[in-house]
Amino acid sequence: MKTNATTLKGVFCPTITPFDEQLNPDKKRFIQQCHRVLEEGCHGLAVFGTTGEANSLSVEERMMLLDALVESGIDGSVIMPGTGCTALTDSVRLSRHAVQLGCSGVLMLPPFYYKNIRTDGLFRAFAEVIERVSEETLKVYLYHIPSVSGVPLDLSLVERLADTYPNCVVGLKDSSGEWPYTEALLRSRPAFGAFSGSEEFLRNNLVAGGSGTITAMANVNASAIRAAYDGFNKDNGEELQLAITRRRKIIQAQPMIPALKSIIATITGDDQWRRVRPPLEPLSIRQTNSLINSLTADGYLPFS
Amino acid sequence: MKTNATTLKGVFCPTITPFDEQLNPDKKRFIQQCHRVLEEGCHGLAVFGTTGEANSLSVEERMMLLDALVESGIDGSVIMPGTGCTALTDSVRLSRHAVQLGCSGVLMLPPFYYKNIRTDGLFRAFAEVIERVSEETLKVYLYHIPSVSGVPLDLSLVERLADTYPNCVVGLKDSSGEWPYTEALLRSRPAFGAFSGSEEFLRNNLVAGGSGTITAMANVNASAIRAAYDGFNKDNGEELQLAITRRRKIIQAQPMIPALKSIIATITGDDQWRRVRPPLEPLSIRQTNSLINSLTADGYLPFS
Repeated sequence: MKTNATTLKGVFCPTITPFDEQLNPDKKRFIQQCHRVLEEGCHGLAVFGTTGEANSLSVEERMMLLDALVESGIDGSVIMPGTGCTALTDSVRLSRHAVQLGCSGVLMLPPFYYKNIRTDGLFRAFAEVIERVSEETLKVYLYHIPSVSGVPLDLSLVERLADTYPNCVVGLKDSSGEWPYTEALLRSRPAFGAFSGSEEFLRNNLVAGGSGTITAMANVNASAIRAAYDGFNKDNGEELQLAITRRRKIIQAQPMIPALKSIIATITGDDQWRRVRPPLEPLSIRQTNSLINSLTADGYLPFS
Repeated sequence: MKTNATTLKGVFCPTITPFDEQLNPDKKRFIQQCHRVLEEGCHGLAVFGTTGEANSLSVEERMMLLDALVESGIDGSVIMPGTGCTALTDSVRLSRHAVQLGCSGVLMLPPFYYKNIRTDGLFRAFAEVIERVSEETLKVYLYHIPSVSGVPLDLSLVERLADTYPNCVVGLKDSSGEWPYTEALLRSRPAFGAFSGSEEFLRNNLVAGGSGTITAMANVNASAIRAAYDGFNKDNGEELQLAITRRRKIIQAQPMIPALKSIIATITGDDQWRRVRPPLEPLSIRQTNSLINSLTADGYLPFS
């Protein structure tokens, strides 16, 4: 029975994480950014993803930010925090905490230190987390991002996890950049909660019955991505898709995470936003100016 | 002034980490194994390396084990724990803890989540940890293991760190498997504490003025590796080297960490040793038997 139905659909923002002068997570600005993208049209927040520099944060820092977010009035039902770490005990702790805060899903990286791991070992890694958390309300979205994690999730592994835990493993974020991966997954499991890791594939995803996109660009281009989501099967669906793909390519010409932070710094007039934790580096002034000019030429409104 | 002199020299064991029935770290067996390899000839312990499944442990689990080790009577001066994590704050916390326990060095991975990071960003990552710990007694050994971490340490980065922090960045473990890396490093910085990550290069390392080896195989073959270390420039130096290289190749035919645990389980008659944390998997009975047979044919004594 292939019943893994997701409750989450739409445009989710893997929110960027601001840092203060001491490079500590900046709670206030984090909450502001989360509220801003929801107001601009995002259906939900995938905090603590690759874009959120999650692995540059300690377990305690992630829990502190999530607590603050819920306290700020954002309901857990629209939050899908990243909880997959290299250590089993850390993944369990973060996943349990997310469930306790009422999060509708968690986005789970595989343990990503060891490479060339057999499917059986990866299955066991996810299974241990799921069984230790042992909560009916835990909904796992697998996070496939091989170019960064170095640990691809074979479709056979996804199928096996979804078959073994039909009420828990309900979806996946595909950040492989290769559309055929999601396509094959949805052909095999039409009700699976497959999100594209790039809005470039948003229309493909929705036409194939997928659940939407979890894209870094939602930090700065939420309303246009939301319009493309809502209008994917309307007359101007292709046009809306082309517009968001074009804008993505402009931003992607720079290192992505620092670029997003520079755009937010420019929009808000608040240079604090430019900070990243090492090993990432902020954009140079020259890179920032070039990016802003290209976006302005594309008709990007927040600067005007 | 290229004065980065290491105080640590010899054969260091990246000790394997045992787990109990609940897959929690097993303090008692961990301490036993550490004492065993020191008695068999190791000069010191590089606990919490790749072989020690360090990244499968939480920060708290690593600190608990290190506390227990020092309490068991092993002096910090012979311990070089791994402290490099993906999160700056975790690396600082572990490095500070190691210094407080009197450890003579720490083995530091680069932050290994993001790939294709610029040298400037990696420099900043190490520099932040060093400056935040801010202790005269912190001695950093950089950990170059690109096939696992996915983040190589260019020689230009090593040189820059060693030049900037001459009293702190004093060495490196080269687990690239490529001898020319260590060779180039020692040609440029003869007093640098360069350890080979494999005993296969032990004699090369010592002839070139290096500091020795930090090798997984010291968990099961310490006395032979120690003999090759002591005798590298004696008449039978090459013979001693060939013997440890041959034995390594036998063990390497199986997945290394589970293989080492199976050997210890066989030596001690204690099957608890076979456990690994996912995503690793224990050796099968068949793999174990094949390994034991090959080692016995090689004259490996602990089984006899």
